[in-house]
Amino acid sequence: MGEKSKKGGQQEQGNKKNTPNVKVVFLGGVGEIGKNMTAIECGDNIIVIDAGSCFPNQEEMPGIDYIIPDFNYLQQNAKRVKGIIVTHGHEDHIGAIPYVLKEVNTPVYGSNLAIALIQHKITEHKLEGIKLKVVEEREVVTLGCFSVEFVRVTHSIAGAFAVAVTTPKGVIFHTGDFKIDHTPVDGRCVDFSRIAQIGENGVLLLLQESTNVEIDGYSMSERNVGKSLDNIFGQNIHKRLIVATFASNVHRIQQILNCALKYNRRVAFSGRSMENIVKITYAIKELKYPPNLLIDLDKIGSIPNDRVCILATGSQGEPESALSRMSTNEFKKVVIGKDDTVIIAASPIPGNQRSIYKVINNLSRKGADVIYHALTSIHVSGHACREELKMMMSLTKPKFFMPVHGEYRHLKLHAELASLMGISPANVEIPELGQVYDISKSGIKKQGTVPSGIVMLDSSLQESSEVLLRDRKLMSGDGFVIAIVNASSKSGELTAPPIIISRGIMLPESLVEDIKTELSVKFMANAGSEFVASEARNDIRKVCAKILFNKLKRRPMVIPITIES
Amino acid sequence: MGEKSKKGGQQEQGNKKNTPNVKVVFLGGVGEIGKNMTAIECGDNIIVIDAGSCFPNQEEMPGIDYIIPDFNYLQQNAKRVKGIIVTHGHEDHIGAIPYVLKEVNTPVYGSNLAIALIQHKITEHKLEGIKLKVVEEREVVTLGCFSVEFVRVTHSIAGAFAVAVTTPKGVIFHTGDFKIDHTPVDGRCVDFSRIAQIGENGVLLLLQESTNVEIDGYSMSERNVGKSLDNIFGQNIHKRLIVATFASNVHRIQQILNCALKYNRRVAFSGRSMENIVKITYAIKELKYPPNLLIDLDKIGSIPNDRVCILATGSQGEPESALSRMSTNEFKKVVIGKDDTVIIAASPIPGNQRSIYKVINNLSRKGADVIYHALTSIHVSGHACREELKMMMSLTKPKFFMPVHGEYRHLKLHAELASLMGISPANVEIPELGQVYDISKSGIKKQGTVPSGIVMLDSSLQESSEVLLRDRKLMSGDGFVIAIVNASSKSGELTAPPIIISRGIMLPESLVEDIKTELSVKFMANAGSEFVASEARNDIRKVCAKILFNKLKRRPMVIPITIES
Repeated sequence: MGEKSKKGGQQEQGNKKNTPNVKVVFLGGVGEIGKNMTAIECGDNIIVIDAGSCFPNQEEMPGIDYIIPDFNYLQQNAKRVKGIIVTHGHEDHIGAIPYVLKEVNTPVYGSNLAIALIQHKITEHKLEGIKLKVVEEREVVTLGCFSVEFVRVTHSIAGAFAVAVTTPKGVIFHTGDFKIDHTPVDGRCVDFSRIAQIGENGVLLLLQESTNVEIDGYSMSERNVGKSLDNIFGQNIHKRLIVATFASNVHRIQQILNCALKYNRRVAFSGRSMENIVKITYAIKELKYPPNLLIDLDKIGSIPNDRVCILATGSQGEPESALSRMSTNEFKKVVIGKDDTVIIAASPIPGNQRSIYKVINNLSRKGADVIYHALTSIHVSGHACREELKMMMSLTKPKFFMPVHGEYRHLKLHAELASLMGISPANVEIPELGQVYDISKSGIKKQGTVPSGIVMLDSSLQESSEVLLRDRKLMSGDGFVIAIVNASSKSGELTAPPIIISRGIMLPESLVEDIKTELSVKFMANAGSEFVASEARNDIRKVCAKILFNKLKRRPMVIPITIES
Repeated sequence: MGEKSKKGGQQEQGNKKNTPNVKVVFLGGVGEIGKNMTAIECGDNIIVIDAGSCFPNQEEMPGIDYIIPDFNYLQQNAKRVKGIIVTHGHEDHIGAIPYVLKEVNTPVYGSNLAIALIQHKITEHKLEGIKLKVVEEREVVTLGCFSVEFVRVTHSIAGAFAVAVTTPKGVIFHTGDFKIDHTPVDGRCVDFSRIAQIGENGVLLLLQESTNVEIDGYSMSERNVGKSLDNIFGQNIHKRLIVATFASNVHRIQQILNCALKYNRRVAFSGRSMENIVKITYAIKELKYPPNLLIDLDKIGSIPNDRVCILATGSQGEPESALSRMSTNEFKKVVIGKDDTVIIAASPIPGNQRSIYKVINNLSRKGADVIYHALTSIHVSGHACREELKMMMSLTKPKFFMPVHGEYRHLKLHAELASLMGISPANVEIPELGQVYDISKSGIKKQGTVPSGIVMLDSSLQESSEVLLRDRKLMSGDGFVIAIVNASSKSGELTAPPIIISRGIMLPESLVEDIKTELSVKFMANAGSEFVASEARNDIRKVCAKILFNKLKRRPMVIPITIES
């Protein structure tokens, strides 16, 4: 970024030899989408930026409810952790916070909305003695040798911040998730003046999100969705309206409520997360509406259909969501029919297409008109496209650049974009998960690694292990076969015929007989010597696997069981 | 469609009272994408249009390799089946043919390429005595009381036909899959003149594909992909090039070969389906290239990297494909590095995003430049968008309209489009799977149903049942618990402590002890009376399920096993 970025160290507070190094550690969000977590470390001080969770692919991790980053590194260094800095209240930035707080007692800083959402989680987890602190824009919080300034940005949730962390070696600017919306619904635009000032004073390192780096141009303003909604409300005055969107997109919900007001409809909420977020955001005045706008879902029958707007969860086709259950008649309070227009104000996150289309098909089949992303512009992204990413680079003028918040292909494209913007390729580094980077005016240096990876959470169990997952995948592929052998512990002779049971695979009777015969032959041959259960189980497994593969060309899981008498 | 469509019955051959009814039966492809199959019936004659397969969602049907339509109706009426009419050679139109031919001995008619692809399947299935007949465009085949004319259309595979079936009640025009490409790679455009003529003579019923009915405007010409490819080849003259695309898109493969020729590269094929299709299409001259253009994949090391173009399968991220294995270093013949540019000339089919992005991330990580749909226009759809669908309706001027080849939401939108085009809503019917429709000048009438649905094929087993699938899904969700109880058949007393084994779920030791204790208590209470295995298994299941749910809030599959002594 040329001459001016040489000021990068202007704010360095100590250039003495014994100033400890500043390190950035990536615990999540790089090389992957979701579960963001970055630590900045200097001497005895560690601050953590975001602690998110994400949902796993059910095909790859059957039965796992969600995933959080492996935060062993924070546990091991619990005493040095001075605080968690939250950029905004999306799950992929706050979902892991209760789990981290259980192990690491440290204050959490964030916007009014982010803290309200975290408070809700803390209450659900029944944690006590937690320090949550609401910060305002441009507020500076001092944590050990760091000072952290919160800078307003726009995003698909209210109360989103970028953070400028002044370290002994210079300023590290983390964009959080952002887009440049010049006409945001709440009128609070990106704080360009402050970002420009911070850039002018010198930014050593920019960490910028990469989600939409594949997309040229600019993202559209959230107001565009408002316009589409207004059109749809206007064109459907004789229908009942059901609108599904992300519960966390407060500005979109505000626009839906505005439309309902304008077109004289009352609004009922459906879905627990929708009810929660409305309650929370209304309480902190992020969401504004006259109280008599709302009507209880149980009471919508008391007013005409064309006066009703139902705001529901399920815009991603989540099977347990209100919308999904409406589409299959499992949701007793709302029966879908020809008088309904359903608006899905979202676009499918990759991987969710099949589920959302299933819901759309089912709703259409019941006679509803369904309006969705493929038909009209009813969603805008909350993430900066290439021109916006360039603008942020121009404003912050960093000496060094590291792309964050993206899969590897995003990070690589983003690194190339930085070079296009004039940042020397030598000053651009694609971060790796678990890698520690030493940051100073002289460069970014790799300096060892810390434990990293994922912790899988099963809502009942505390954690799930790799072995359980491997088993579940195996079973879901080819099913399994249980073979039980009863033998005398002294002679090794069978005391009863083997028992063969299968699930998830159909075994022809002749095959079961073959297995029983082979097992009997095998154990007859071994008879006379002591029965060693572990060896016997190996034998059972081999006999079964061989026959199953030869006859069926399948490898179901074989579970050998020995019973000694 | 106004006055002229009243001629709809002009070609009716018999208006006498005893002319048998004409019926259309939908066995696949309506209300779903894939496995297309439509039957037209009149008296003793049945013809089948297409017999396709599709791939299941592994999350919904773990372990199932592919799905074909339930064709019980054809089996039951095997003697009346006069032939299978193939519109084109895509799997979703020909994949079920070998299975149908095993049960129903009937000739198959299609284009040169379609028949060559079917011949390949027949050989693999070792079927004998099959009659495959290549037809030319505008050729008319008489099958019982039907005469079937094949009409050239453009699509993402060469040799694609629409078919005009003249029945005793009028002409049924089935578009097959099509787009309007005015500049197709092989120069053979849609046969507009003939379609217009058929329309002018009168079409009773139009069956038109619905895939892209959500998309406004026109699809782009396949030549656009050629232009993009040419640019990429020109900009990467110092790199090795690896191009992945659909093996069946012969015109795209032709354009890749043309680029290789122009930029002086030799082409190696990778992936069995790619090798097969190239061999087949070269043999029938659908693909043209000088033989010395090719080089064996084993020999690419003998020429410089910048003279090599590898054409590979795996454009959908299929885990077993060449490209996917290259991305994870499992493909020994091609090691990916910084000197490689990988072009993925396809766009992800919904549901495949995660897999294809995984491959792109891995290839990028190895240093390759990856060029894909999100970055440049490297794919065009093979299906008609709204303006093209309208054009076909304008040309054929049908009296009645039924949208086919689409999920329900597509069919519904397509029906609405037909009304926009002036076809009276009373003359438009959204077909349902398994439904029989009586077609005549006086209208479309529902007339009973036939068996319909899916047959799941597991490459080892002949068919898979619903029960197996349910088991596999259960297991993959919460794992399972096996509980074995040894008891005396006379007294019902336990002869050994219960055995508890689990897979895919972690049971704390204390929980296992709880289960054992509860089981012992239960069976102790029952002791003294005769041991009834079925009742005992019910007891075991109940005891286990209760404890597991109370303690873990999970419902793993419980497998009770009783052993009597």
